[in-house]
Amino acid sequence: MTLEPNSFAKRSTIEQVEEGNELAPKFDAAGLIPVVCTDYKTGELLMHGYMNEEAFRKSMETGEAHYYSRSRKQLWHKGATSGLVQKIKEFRIDDDQDCVWIRVEVLSTGASCHVGYRSCFYRAVPVGQELSSAKKFSDIKLEYLESEKVFDPKEVYGDAPNPTIL
Amino acid sequence: MTLEPNSFAKRSTIEQVEEGNELAPKFDAAGLIPVVCTDYKTGELLMHGYMNEEAFRKSMETGEAHYYSRSRKQLWHKGATSGLVQKIKEFRIDDDQDCVWIRVEVLSTGASCHVGYRSCFYRAVPVGQELSSAKKFSDIKLEYLESEKVFDPKEVYGDAPNPTIL
Repeated sequence: MTLEPNSFAKRSTIEQVEEGNELAPKFDAAGLIPVVCTDYKTGELLMHGYMNEEAFRKSMETGEAHYYSRSRKQLWHKGATSGLVQKIKEFRIDDDQDCVWIRVEVLSTGASCHVGYRSCFYRAVPVGQELSSAKKFSDIKLEYLESEKVFDPKEVYGDAPNPTIL
Repeated sequence: MTLEPNSFAKRSTIEQVEEGNELAPKFDAAGLIPVVCTDYKTGELLMHGYMNEEAFRKSMETGEAHYYSRSRKQLWHKGATSGLVQKIKEFRIDDDQDCVWIRVEVLSTGASCHVGYRSCFYRAVPVGQELSSAKKFSDIKLEYLESEKVFDPKEVYGDAPNPTIL
């Protein structure tokens, strides 16, 4: 199954984009569209990434999540190294078609975070009354919601550079 | 409850950012951080938006979602016009602290999409074998997953300009 690159419908009117059934995604100035990735069964947010046109196309063609890695500046077939492939069970697009939601089943251990946790969002930030006496953001302590890592990143990724940018 | 603006911990090391308990978010070159907003009870993705530092701070201080509107170029207290206020039940940050996940309870009709649907992600894109004979993206038809709007945008927003940018 192959699709012709960049063969999207042209974005002509707000009504077409919001209320129509044509696929007319908007990639940003860097050629990217944000992607929200949740677990198909639990609804948990696993990760947030970006697709360029090629990653978007490969994801649709193969049914496996492909992203564009901004740190490595290349197409990224999620799970190619780790085995943590994300099978896309549902692919949605939002009202103005500038964001994608994929609901996935993760193979192997089911984790999606390079640090070793199941979800990238393993820490909570106190909010409202939970802030108690904090006066500065730097007074705040994050709370861990996952107590144990699912896998050891060193075993899985070896000496590959960490993708986090300070 | 007020927090001193921009009083975050400094981002010093990858270990601090990923494995520590300090809040050290990374705003992008435009001063924004992406926000994934899901329904606290159902896990449904309601919307994807952005916060600047002020919106981040107001969200934490008030426990109600504030965004930065890129189309209106201003702070946006979600629900101020529509009544569809988002009460933050949980606020999470990801591994490299460049993305936020808020789990919310939406007041009033429970909708979050300016088009009138409950979720902004009311359309599915066929993927993998569902593509059948499509050769171009423009051959693809989106499938509606919400059959009815929850509210009438004209009644709620009147003549306010549509935020969608072509």
